[in-house]
Amino acid sequence: MAKKNAFYAQSGGVTAVINASACGVIETARKHKDKIGKVYAGRNGIIGALTEDLIDTSKDSAKSIAALRHTPSGAFGSCRFKLKGLEENKAQYERLIEVFKAHNIGYFFYNGGGDSADTCYKVSQLSAKMGYPVQAIHVPKTVDNDLPITDCCPGFGSVAKYVAVSVREASFDVASMAKTSTKVFVVEVMGRHAGWIAAAGGLASDGKCNLPIVILFPEIPFNQKKFLAKVDAMVKKHGYCSVVVSEGVQGEDGKFLSDQGLRDAFGHAQLGGAAPVIANMVKEALGYKFHWAVADYLQRAARHIASKTDVEQAYALGKAAVDLALKGENAVMPAITRLSDQPYKWKIGVAPLSKVANVEKMMPRNFITADGFGITEKCRAYLAPLIKGEDYPPYKDGLPQYVQLRNVAVPKKLGEFKL
Amino acid sequence: MAKKNAFYAQSGGVTAVINASACGVIETARKHKDKIGKVYAGRNGIIGALTEDLIDTSKDSAKSIAALRHTPSGAFGSCRFKLKGLEENKAQYERLIEVFKAHNIGYFFYNGGGDSADTCYKVSQLSAKMGYPVQAIHVPKTVDNDLPITDCCPGFGSVAKYVAVSVREASFDVASMAKTSTKVFVVEVMGRHAGWIAAAGGLASDGKCNLPIVILFPEIPFNQKKFLAKVDAMVKKHGYCSVVVSEGVQGEDGKFLSDQGLRDAFGHAQLGGAAPVIANMVKEALGYKFHWAVADYLQRAARHIASKTDVEQAYALGKAAVDLALKGENAVMPAITRLSDQPYKWKIGVAPLSKVANVEKMMPRNFITADGFGITEKCRAYLAPLIKGEDYPPYKDGLPQYVQLRNVAVPKKLGEFKL
Repeated sequence: MAKKNAFYAQSGGVTAVINASACGVIETARKHKDKIGKVYAGRNGIIGALTEDLIDTSKDSAKSIAALRHTPSGAFGSCRFKLKGLEENKAQYERLIEVFKAHNIGYFFYNGGGDSADTCYKVSQLSAKMGYPVQAIHVPKTVDNDLPITDCCPGFGSVAKYVAVSVREASFDVASMAKTSTKVFVVEVMGRHAGWIAAAGGLASDGKCNLPIVILFPEIPFNQKKFLAKVDAMVKKHGYCSVVVSEGVQGEDGKFLSDQGLRDAFGHAQLGGAAPVIANMVKEALGYKFHWAVADYLQRAARHIASKTDVEQAYALGKAAVDLALKGENAVMPAITRLSDQPYKWKIGVAPLSKVANVEKMMPRNFITADGFGITEKCRAYLAPLIKGEDYPPYKDGLPQYVQLRNVAVPKKLGEFKL
Repeated sequence: MAKKNAFYAQSGGVTAVINASACGVIETARKHKDKIGKVYAGRNGIIGALTEDLIDTSKDSAKSIAALRHTPSGAFGSCRFKLKGLEENKAQYERLIEVFKAHNIGYFFYNGGGDSADTCYKVSQLSAKMGYPVQAIHVPKTVDNDLPITDCCPGFGSVAKYVAVSVREASFDVASMAKTSTKVFVVEVMGRHAGWIAAAGGLASDGKCNLPIVILFPEIPFNQKKFLAKVDAMVKKHGYCSVVVSEGVQGEDGKFLSDQGLRDAFGHAQLGGAAPVIANMVKEALGYKFHWAVADYLQRAARHIASKTDVEQAYALGKAAVDLALKGENAVMPAITRLSDQPYKWKIGVAPLSKVANVEKMMPRNFITADGFGITEKCRAYLAPLIKGEDYPPYKDGLPQYVQLRNVAVPKKLGEFKL
């Protein structure tokens, strides 16, 4: 049997380190040319496979591929496109297999979150049934840190570091202005379902550097009265405070805080953030001067302040995916297993996709303080190693040098396919 | 005559490098103990002088003072407090002189923007008239980069670097998602009167790394039709675009874009930003999916990505202020004189405060492209050197180690003073 090519695709929201995983996959595959042919990448994720829009990664130099390790975003394009259930849309899965067959693809590396783990699992099952078995390996990625089994998810550590560093810096800023100016600073961070990213704001304050920080988690229903009392107490004690609010915070009525039915002068609905809502609330009730920020994409793209631990794990998981494929594994995901907190030690384990797909890992309640506004020592012990170490990209003339690949298309062999 | 003490105070919004100037002042003064006694700092800026709330900086170790160089914010506290005109409130100026006299202060180093240059100038004039001459030296600082004579202002280069790096990173992110998700990303940056900070967003794209970026400057009245046409053209050509909007952008009616009379469900006024307004406008008119961010304090506090050029200049200007004082200068400000763009060369010159006070330096029109949405090569040549070089703070366990000083109070000698 001739050696098979590999297919790699990025899925969902991109991160500061998903390209480091791509780098791990491609560099490792290139070291095993006896067993793996070319690595094709999906242009814009799985859509590239469905539309047979494949990228021949062999057209990019070793130097360019190496630069993926320090380049944020998804170098081949990603997409938000969830394949439906096998029954609902078998045609899409069959098309995938058809494309794989046409391009002699025997390895499917899918780099994403929970949804893509599910797709990956289904491809593995269906391809076997269709008599063209493909080894499907999922490479974990999500800033939300909500995949099961793996101790943490690549992408999260770097967002966590960005948030911890930014909250520390902004808190220093506010502390120096509080006498005559801003007393409450509110920053909104990502995490619609789980409060992992918001929790990282708590790392800004530690034994050596005590800062007043109030965190609003999506896991804790928002109680306006308790929140305002907490902020007021912090300002009275410290002169100021910083509030880290997750975009996913909901009121006791289950409505997102950011969904306040705002209207502009013309009556158009305005999509706001949670931060301005919180800031306004503080102003109205307590009269404190405020400022607010919404980090949005800046946080997940911030490769300039990536966590070294995160970069190393992202690369290692990409590498491990190929190693697992070479060992004949199928329908699995390489995962981080934590061996100890201090000193932080980890290794790569293996998780069956049947146990990963469609399971969300929420923050345990004992990671959040009793009053619901802070992180516990248990949470700190978990989070702290994930932001360890700096891994600066190279700079030229003051700017980080991120690679833009050539992304040369593979000639098509099949007819069109309507998405 | 016994040697005199020095007084140093921080004024207005703090920056990532104002403490580097403080470091320059204090370290240089400590080297001239034969001529300068102690350096007292104003707690919370000039308010500390008025209320005789002075900090004895000699109580902090050489190591702590050295750490100011890499610590953002204002280590002694800053304030927004503008002394009125001499005629309106002579009592405040007389009080300053009284406090200086009581603590044998002969040197006044005031670290701030245009307003504080004015105060500094008046203190110099009045102290001479009152028979207790104080040498008043202004140390420039402002992220707004709007002081005259000096080629640039400490604090600006680091914000510019933060904005350029962040816009590059977010643009990479959006580029990878644009096929099925966000097509327009809007980030709001500081600069209520001048577009210097917004202009720095243009540096994200250069000859080697071409990115579609639209900039909205406060100098150019906002024209919705032209703006939407520009964004639409960018998205049609590149698949996506990033918009950098200055907080100070005004419509042709002179109203701030951010001031849209937003009301929440209860009819309360909501203070919004310009970014959500712009994003909503794009969505309504063009239907593109958007995301938006507001950087706010994160940008000016971001010492982790400070410009090396900026840090060096901030320190050098602090040092120069003391050197000028030792030479007997008065009512002056050390300023950056640019000698050449490429290679970038600069030296420290001297500007008389009479020519600095209350003058704002706006972006020249020829720094903005004809269509009003980008920066010209002339602007690029000016900005590029200011973000050059990295100057990372030390890290421990993944977090930057910023110093919190002891800030020991000097015993009071005078009665109370009502502000």
